[in-house]
Amino acid sequence: MTTTHPDAPEVLVVGAGLAGLTAARRLTQAGRRVRVLEARERVGGRTHTLRLPLTGVSVDVGGQWVGPNQPHVMALLRELGLEVFPTYDAGQNLAHLLGRTLRYRGLIPPLPPHVLADYALLSGKFEALARRIPKDAPWQAPDAEALDAQTFDTWITRHAHTPQTRALMRLYAGAVFSADAAEFSLLHALAYTAHGGGINGHTLTRGNALQDRVLGGAQAIAQRLADGLPDVRLGSPVTRVEQDGAGVTLHTPDGSHHAPHAILAVPPALLSGVPFDPPLPPRRAQLQQRLPMGAVIKFLAVYERPFWRDAGLSGMAISDTGPVTVTFDSSPPQGTPGVLLGFIEGHDARALMGCGEEDRREAALASLARLFGPEARCPLETVERNWAAEPHSGGCYGALFGPGTWTGYGGALRAPVGRLHWAGAETARVWMNYMDGAVESGERAAAEVLAAGT
Amino acid sequence: MTTTHPDAPEVLVVGAGLAGLTAARRLTQAGRRVRVLEARERVGGRTHTLRLPLTGVSVDVGGQWVGPNQPHVMALLRELGLEVFPTYDAGQNLAHLLGRTLRYRGLIPPLPPHVLADYALLSGKFEALARRIPKDAPWQAPDAEALDAQTFDTWITRHAHTPQTRALMRLYAGAVFSADAAEFSLLHALAYTAHGGGINGHTLTRGNALQDRVLGGAQAIAQRLADGLPDVRLGSPVTRVEQDGAGVTLHTPDGSHHAPHAILAVPPALLSGVPFDPPLPPRRAQLQQRLPMGAVIKFLAVYERPFWRDAGLSGMAISDTGPVTVTFDSSPPQGTPGVLLGFIEGHDARALMGCGEEDRREAALASLARLFGPEARCPLETVERNWAAEPHSGGCYGALFGPGTWTGYGGALRAPVGRLHWAGAETARVWMNYMDGAVESGERAAAEVLAAGT
Repeated sequence: MTTTHPDAPEVLVVGAGLAGLTAARRLTQAGRRVRVLEARERVGGRTHTLRLPLTGVSVDVGGQWVGPNQPHVMALLRELGLEVFPTYDAGQNLAHLLGRTLRYRGLIPPLPPHVLADYALLSGKFEALARRIPKDAPWQAPDAEALDAQTFDTWITRHAHTPQTRALMRLYAGAVFSADAAEFSLLHALAYTAHGGGINGHTLTRGNALQDRVLGGAQAIAQRLADGLPDVRLGSPVTRVEQDGAGVTLHTPDGSHHAPHAILAVPPALLSGVPFDPPLPPRRAQLQQRLPMGAVIKFLAVYERPFWRDAGLSGMAISDTGPVTVTFDSSPPQGTPGVLLGFIEGHDARALMGCGEEDRREAALASLARLFGPEARCPLETVERNWAAEPHSGGCYGALFGPGTWTGYGGALRAPVGRLHWAGAETARVWMNYMDGAVESGERAAAEVLAAGT
Repeated sequence: MTTTHPDAPEVLVVGAGLAGLTAARRLTQAGRRVRVLEARERVGGRTHTLRLPLTGVSVDVGGQWVGPNQPHVMALLRELGLEVFPTYDAGQNLAHLLGRTLRYRGLIPPLPPHVLADYALLSGKFEALARRIPKDAPWQAPDAEALDAQTFDTWITRHAHTPQTRALMRLYAGAVFSADAAEFSLLHALAYTAHGGGINGHTLTRGNALQDRVLGGAQAIAQRLADGLPDVRLGSPVTRVEQDGAGVTLHTPDGSHHAPHAILAVPPALLSGVPFDPPLPPRRAQLQQRLPMGAVIKFLAVYERPFWRDAGLSGMAISDTGPVTVTFDSSPPQGTPGVLLGFIEGHDARALMGCGEEDRREAALASLARLFGPEARCPLETVERNWAAEPHSGGCYGALFGPGTWTGYGGALRAPVGRLHWAGAETARVWMNYMDGAVESGERAAAEVLAAGT
């Protein structure tokens, strides 16, 4: 029988993002003493809400949308007493493809009939394949090896018959995976798509993943979670992980922490160079080398009012000409000031990720002006977040599974290693890399620890 | 002007593998004071020579071959006064393909004429493509984006017309890249192949990369290099990297080290979770997430004598049935005892990497017996190295460039970051992931530091 200080933690949680904090909440609710160690000086991980200095508007520079098809985060929002409000989507959308800008309502731009037929066939085929993938175990899909031996780009190139269809599918890769279609496997594309029940589940507002935003900003979820926890330590990066038969010891620059169990709720890529004693099993260690983070820069421009609405536009646009390839109206619920949100993804993000912020601002505003006219060039204020430059995220929205990773290493993604348990949006069984998946993963990891006893 | 202790190092080198030690030697020869920090309690990195306890034979459980087409390592061997001896290759080779075992002399198994024609066309097409790739900058190849958007497996599947050709190309992937063909891009396959001047440059003995072995074992190179250096510190893993305008500070558990410049000569994947202050540029940071190490288990069985030679066999075999898919005679120069070497690669290595050593031994001996008969089942002694289980290598032979990595991040592979320089076999401009590439990278990094002044 071990004697421990009566206040000593029973579970250590690494990472105060949504996954770690949700795990800590569930364990605390179950009567466990939990200590959360967070490397940053803030909670929220890949959610971060900023109040802008000039206009005073609050914007999300990280994750921002939730939808009714995402039960875990929706239930948590209700539990925490947080409110949501609808994403602005009235008016016409814009699609800039092959040098032409189209205005349209609804799902699909008014492309020539043969293109629409091609896109319908291709997306139908893709979604039919996706329905055959076990969401929580893609490596068990029929033909998993063949689906995982090719890139999503290879599949698009082979099956799309028009340049517009190829462009739309590559925009899907950028907007939803924050990567080029070449950077992940077809199996990953299918499994991830299956989490949303299809392409539209990921890309549309009403009824889908982009339906709502969190009043006060998405970081409020993490803040509210942390407020309910007794022991959250900021500025505590874990530099070494030890375990033996009795428990886990986590080292930080300010000292070490010990508990019978630990949940590591950070992107796996960030664990690759961290020493583990004893060393991690080789499959887990090699998995952590194989989950690179996506590349995305989120850019927000604030205007006195949402001028695009006057022109009958929703603020939603897609463009095959970067750097901004996807936009949304991200104004506060009352509609003023107007906030236009632009995403820079994959190769566009790489081209700009090493530049100075002024160069990125210039490039992003040029994109917005091409879509929304010269007024877009003169915002009151802008803000951006280059997630690849954040050492404690390594990129956003989440990890990419390249060819061979799901089939070669998928089984190691959630398998506990002794007293170490894994959470984080990458480990979610549904909506991986989304806020919903983070919450689901935290609840699953907490349940694992509770089931393990002490 | 900074005042430093007259004995303080002018350059820190991280990693006492061939790259780091070569860099340290060149800098020392140029009059610089160099300190080498090595995480392990030995030098040699991915070369490691063991003297086996029962038979007393010395075997290489890591890199072991050099060839006359590898000028950097050959010159270094001469410089160090180390001798080489020829790889045993007399007699017939074996090829076990599609359930049949063929005996043959020369390059290619005696397959049906339509298969030989198919293989000749396919390999010719592949090598013609490879000749168009700039060896030190694959991302500048014509059509680099398209070549990097697909896996090598996709290309094989599309262009091979017989199952035997597909099997041979996948064996090439396993034997030369220590990975499945699905795990890396076509562009990487081409660039890597180009380093050897074609497929045969990598896979053959006389005149090629497998011609010779180092007398006394390949680790002797590192030992001899280290013997000539004044300051090599073992057991010194670097846990934090800081730099400012004046120099670099490297933290280890036993203290910190400071110098005007540092060369990091370790696999990039191992740096992914190491804190850098200031943070690495985002493209470099994301590159480190995208260079997973190959999966290989090297298995050696020692027999009283090389019994396969009596049967007219060279000991060289390829097999599309694992776990051992490639074998060599790895006996000492005098020919006794007999040592048979089996490689377990890619998916075969993954299937066994988490097993106990006894299970791997059993599986490997069954493979050897299928190829060389029941005598292979009863070795005097065996030894293995499961490189994925080595925390300070992370896998072997080296890093894999998945789709999108060369074109998206290649430019960051060797670009110095302030006072930090990069070496290691992954950064080689020729023979990457080979001993020759490691030496070349060390010499290049040393030249960079010398050119940078202080």
